[in-house]
Amino acid sequence: MFEAGIQLKEEYGAENVFDFSLGNPNVPPPDIFQRVLRETAEDDRPGVHGYMPNAGLSETRSAIARYLSDVHEMTITVDHILTTCGAGGALNVVFKTLLDPGDEVIIPTPFFVEYRFYIDNHGGTPVLVTTNDDFSLDMAAIEKAVTEKTKIVLINSPNNPTGAVYDARQIDALSRLLKEKSAALGRDIYLVSDEPYRDIVYDGMSVPSVLSRFSNSIVATSYSKNLSIPGERIGYIVLSPELSDISAVTAGMVLCNRILGFVNAPALMQRVVTRLQGVSVDSAIYQKKRDLLYAGLTDIGYDVEKPGGAFYLFPRTPIDDDVAFVQALQKYNILAVPGSGFGGPGHIRICYCVDDNTITGAMNGFEKAFHEFR
Amino acid sequence: MFEAGIQLKEEYGAENVFDFSLGNPNVPPPDIFQRVLRETAEDDRPGVHGYMPNAGLSETRSAIARYLSDVHEMTITVDHILTTCGAGGALNVVFKTLLDPGDEVIIPTPFFVEYRFYIDNHGGTPVLVTTNDDFSLDMAAIEKAVTEKTKIVLINSPNNPTGAVYDARQIDALSRLLKEKSAALGRDIYLVSDEPYRDIVYDGMSVPSVLSRFSNSIVATSYSKNLSIPGERIGYIVLSPELSDISAVTAGMVLCNRILGFVNAPALMQRVVTRLQGVSVDSAIYQKKRDLLYAGLTDIGYDVEKPGGAFYLFPRTPIDDDVAFVQALQKYNILAVPGSGFGGPGHIRICYCVDDNTITGAMNGFEKAFHEFR
Repeated sequence: MFEAGIQLKEEYGAENVFDFSLGNPNVPPPDIFQRVLRETAEDDRPGVHGYMPNAGLSETRSAIARYLSDVHEMTITVDHILTTCGAGGALNVVFKTLLDPGDEVIIPTPFFVEYRFYIDNHGGTPVLVTTNDDFSLDMAAIEKAVTEKTKIVLINSPNNPTGAVYDARQIDALSRLLKEKSAALGRDIYLVSDEPYRDIVYDGMSVPSVLSRFSNSIVATSYSKNLSIPGERIGYIVLSPELSDISAVTAGMVLCNRILGFVNAPALMQRVVTRLQGVSVDSAIYQKKRDLLYAGLTDIGYDVEKPGGAFYLFPRTPIDDDVAFVQALQKYNILAVPGSGFGGPGHIRICYCVDDNTITGAMNGFEKAFHEFR
Repeated sequence: MFEAGIQLKEEYGAENVFDFSLGNPNVPPPDIFQRVLRETAEDDRPGVHGYMPNAGLSETRSAIARYLSDVHEMTITVDHILTTCGAGGALNVVFKTLLDPGDEVIIPTPFFVEYRFYIDNHGGTPVLVTTNDDFSLDMAAIEKAVTEKTKIVLINSPNNPTGAVYDARQIDALSRLLKEKSAALGRDIYLVSDEPYRDIVYDGMSVPSVLSRFSNSIVATSYSKNLSIPGERIGYIVLSPELSDISAVTAGMVLCNRILGFVNAPALMQRVVTRLQGVSVDSAIYQKKRDLLYAGLTDIGYDVEKPGGAFYLFPRTPIDDDVAFVQALQKYNILAVPGSGFGGPGHIRICYCVDDNTITGAMNGFEKAFHEFR
């Protein structure tokens, strides 16, 4: 999609192409990021670019632990943190560490497509379960999907591609279910929560803490979205301090970070984020874009669930065939991604981390395409 | 070892611990690196920290291709380069792309221990073959090891842990052998060369080009050693322009870079190395250390092969049990790594990317330990 977008823009001019295909934040990094980056680049003490323990820089992990202790209102220490090459690296480390061949990973749909690869890389089997019409967790569907091979339930909140945020009631219910099932099966089931959009939530909402709710929980995340630096590949893993067999799991993750070839998260960016705990782009900027797009599409007649976070809208397509509808949009130089790729057929994913002009400029095309099928 | 070294230094004082266990370059990055890094950190154009094509930044790949075209005296283009998260990331991408379950990877010993993990990650089987007494390639041993399951021969020159540099005669002979065997077996055998120490060679030596000698060759490398920045995780893959089925292999590597969770090499360091093609720390600094250490050890009576590159010495131990000898050295606060871990029992690996004082200060301990067993 990246290359297709570049090509269309070369052909028609960037201002005439409405590219909603990529979750590449268009909001610049916060000003303080630029300042801290400049200062960090001045640092020429011996070894600042050298190898380090595979878990990451101790000062970075300590800073993250202090920040998370506040956020989650619990004691998280340096030993519970491993810095990683983004959330993608974090999830690969988690899966490599936890999965035995044939282990199942339950994923509510629609879901971020890369999960399928990340699980397959390490011999696991993804088990897809549907969500409710508003994309909230369907607890009965998850319960039905649990087997004696279930090792992980993987959630992503705020969600890519739907923008859904699972509220405390859902996380509590899921925690209860997993506790019961783990006990009944005599086997640990881990809750892995992928949370790179945690700071991008709207209407005063906040993302409930899985770490404080479920003992066998692990959070994977990155600074890609809240600092708008996805190309820098910096993120981390947090283990619940109550995790079963935590010292073995920690040792396994440190080893896997090394042997998967990550070795350690990029040194310079570890030093940068050490000083940027709790810093995030202003989510009001994205909220305004959400509102603009949501209002425009619902006015036309699209059936859209209003998302609580992230920067994705996942409207129903006016015809069942979402691939055909994406092609119809392309006639108007609108790029979106078919929902079927995310396990959500009959929808499209619209990334609204774009200029406001792209949103307003695309409305005419969204309307014409809609009426072609109505 | 990293943590063990830190602990000993805390206990005895850093100046009383002689840590030769880690290949963490002690020579600072070249001055120009600091300047380019500072300038790159000033760059706040939109998107400089954003996502990019998974193969890496086009300007970085073009700069590398231009530089390599000169070095290898052949035409290498942007399409033959993929930037990676260090050489460790590069090798994982190569193995994930090329290996089918059960495929064999031939590795001359002694070898970099991580290879075993990297190959196992992707379902391959390492096949170890011995080298000659001077650590040069034993062509008969390699020939004998080739089977109908051989997919890759993996070499590392200059070598970790021996410092051996394979000369043009050896690379030519290996190329001929692989060409013959590929034809006889009706199956492509790839030569993968891991070359992060290419610029760290001594006595006017240079590392022969595998790319210009063998059509199915792939080079994995990083800037970790020549710029002394191993913590920054920046490297690349080069495909021979003559590689069989090159468009499928390229597409596979781009996909694997993405799905293994690397996504792309860190953006900022890609911009930095774009401007540092051909820049390297002065290898004369390491040569002086090699000479100091080699002279000292041979004077004591150690049997040492004089290495042509990298920053490792791999002497024979005075007793067969290299683990016991490493323990004997520890009594004198000398940290080295048993050769058996590298598939080279009866040896130890000494990393001499350390202060000259560490080398001279350790000589007394090296002598005492030697005479304990003589």
